[in-house]
Amino acid sequence: MTERRPVLVVHGGAGTHAAIAGCPEARKAVEEGVVQAARRGYDELRKGGSSLDAVEAAVMSLEDNATFNAGHGSCLTLEGAVEMDASIMDGHSLDAGSVVCVSNVANPVHLARAVMEQTKHVSLISDRASAFAEHVGIGTVNPSTLITEKSLRRLHSQPQFQASRLDDFYKQNPGSTGTAKDDNHGTVGAVALDSHGNVAYATSTGGINAKMPGRMGDSPIIGSGGYADNRCGCVSTTGDGEALMKTCLARQITFLMEQGRSAQQAVEEGLSYLQDRVGGSGGAIVLTPQGDIGISFVSKGMSWAYVNSPQIHYGIYHGEDNTEAV
Amino acid sequence: MTERRPVLVVHGGAGTHAAIAGCPEARKAVEEGVVQAARRGYDELRKGGSSLDAVEAAVMSLEDNATFNAGHGSCLTLEGAVEMDASIMDGHSLDAGSVVCVSNVANPVHLARAVMEQTKHVSLISDRASAFAEHVGIGTVNPSTLITEKSLRRLHSQPQFQASRLDDFYKQNPGSTGTAKDDNHGTVGAVALDSHGNVAYATSTGGINAKMPGRMGDSPIIGSGGYADNRCGCVSTTGDGEALMKTCLARQITFLMEQGRSAQQAVEEGLSYLQDRVGGSGGAIVLTPQGDIGISFVSKGMSWAYVNSPQIHYGIYHGEDNTEAV
Repeated sequence: MTERRPVLVVHGGAGTHAAIAGCPEARKAVEEGVVQAARRGYDELRKGGSSLDAVEAAVMSLEDNATFNAGHGSCLTLEGAVEMDASIMDGHSLDAGSVVCVSNVANPVHLARAVMEQTKHVSLISDRASAFAEHVGIGTVNPSTLITEKSLRRLHSQPQFQASRLDDFYKQNPGSTGTAKDDNHGTVGAVALDSHGNVAYATSTGGINAKMPGRMGDSPIIGSGGYADNRCGCVSTTGDGEALMKTCLARQITFLMEQGRSAQQAVEEGLSYLQDRVGGSGGAIVLTPQGDIGISFVSKGMSWAYVNSPQIHYGIYHGEDNTEAV
Repeated sequence: MTERRPVLVVHGGAGTHAAIAGCPEARKAVEEGVVQAARRGYDELRKGGSSLDAVEAAVMSLEDNATFNAGHGSCLTLEGAVEMDASIMDGHSLDAGSVVCVSNVANPVHLARAVMEQTKHVSLISDRASAFAEHVGIGTVNPSTLITEKSLRRLHSQPQFQASRLDDFYKQNPGSTGTAKDDNHGTVGAVALDSHGNVAYATSTGGINAKMPGRMGDSPIIGSGGYADNRCGCVSTTGDGEALMKTCLARQITFLMEQGRSAQQAVEEGLSYLQDRVGGSGGAIVLTPQGDIGISFVSKGMSWAYVNSPQIHYGIYHGEDNTEAV
């Protein structure tokens, strides 16, 4: 097989990015975060690592960065807790791993990979995923260390945040249990192509701000939060989780590539489908085994970066394409 | 819109059905169970109920029947507990609901429908799903009431059932955490078409015998355990959950119908894809908005029944097609 030139793409979530409007420091933090994650993932590829190594490293970088809604700095549930979802998939074997509603692991994507590689299952949830983490030597952390001042402020600013106890919330929201749409998403993800021609994706999130405790979103779901198949390509998605689940957005985008659409056509057409069928908003990054990149979002913004040596490209709003040297 | 003639299809799970080989009573219980569930669901349609009402009623009948691996009589985890997954989807709106690893609800499919209709989320997990059940007036039950003599015997007969404590299991299975493939699946499901031309699916399961606690399978995943879309049709799947998740089998089958395959062609081609790509075994039932039925399985057997008035058809092994009057 011809050796492929490695490519890595990351996103830092689709949304309004209201927090960075008119705030150059906040904007800079987002840009630096996605560029740094792209560099981290690309370093793995440059050292000869696999596409799995690359997407895991890139997403861990975003999980560790409190600017993004994943790992440290995750959005909080109605009760003020962290509950994180993540998944990872190998386009060579179609092997996949995911974790749902984990509260005390610094890097959910790393745990998802352990589920993939060290169990016969694909998904583990909640405390049981944490118990598995301890079994395989992935340390757990005090959940409070993942909560930031910003995530608490974000929770308290939500109109649907009425009370710290779910019972009160239920009482105050008869007939409409759940949360309003939060425009400020921030799920993170990466897709990669390694020199062997293998593709992979990883996605990680804190979910929706002020979500019901125990809510599972699209990020841990193979086919919604992402998909990877060496026959067509790989995808990581972000946006209205429930809408992405109803449309299996990631698998939809890979179907379109199987039918001959380019990476960019497939992601644009997939997002149109998301809007038309369920009125959903979001974005996605796509990469083919040939190294073609697709990046699109139907939200106001989506932070993204990619490395296609010798350049790093990055942007947030429509029409942006900034570059710097690797 | 022309009034459609209602159709309902159920399955009682794909697998070897080793338990019924050479045992006419066991075989009869399976046949009677799927026929009864088909009748229950069809009654809803005949009374003017929606396809959602019909699939819910049919699946609740199978959950209540200890012969099947869902609700009462569910397979048990390595620790001997019940952890059930279920989902439901409306092909008209693409609205969907699911619950993951619930232990103390008699009818997980009923709870999944409540998640769909009474929250803004699609999925709730574990104890949080149970808390929501109590909030909306769906009673919880003592988990022990869902455990049967048969499910305990099935657990204790598994070679991978080494110990009642997960720690011991971990110690005894270094490097290979998880369970061996269990050939005797038994996930249940239904698909329906109502007189308004709307399709729906529901799927419910106790998962794999001797699974790791906290394992989520395909049944609660929209696009893997089932899919419903008025534009092409509806599907409920059963089989190797992890393989179904990796291939998004239900969405794959509806995608083939979108491309013009008949219901029967789509389900056969989907199952070939499952085998070819990940070596998976399983089965599925399919129904189009025109009332065309597809039923297929690549396992040794799959119990199924359908009502297309005035006849009920049913079978378990390849080539069977028994009939009786509605």
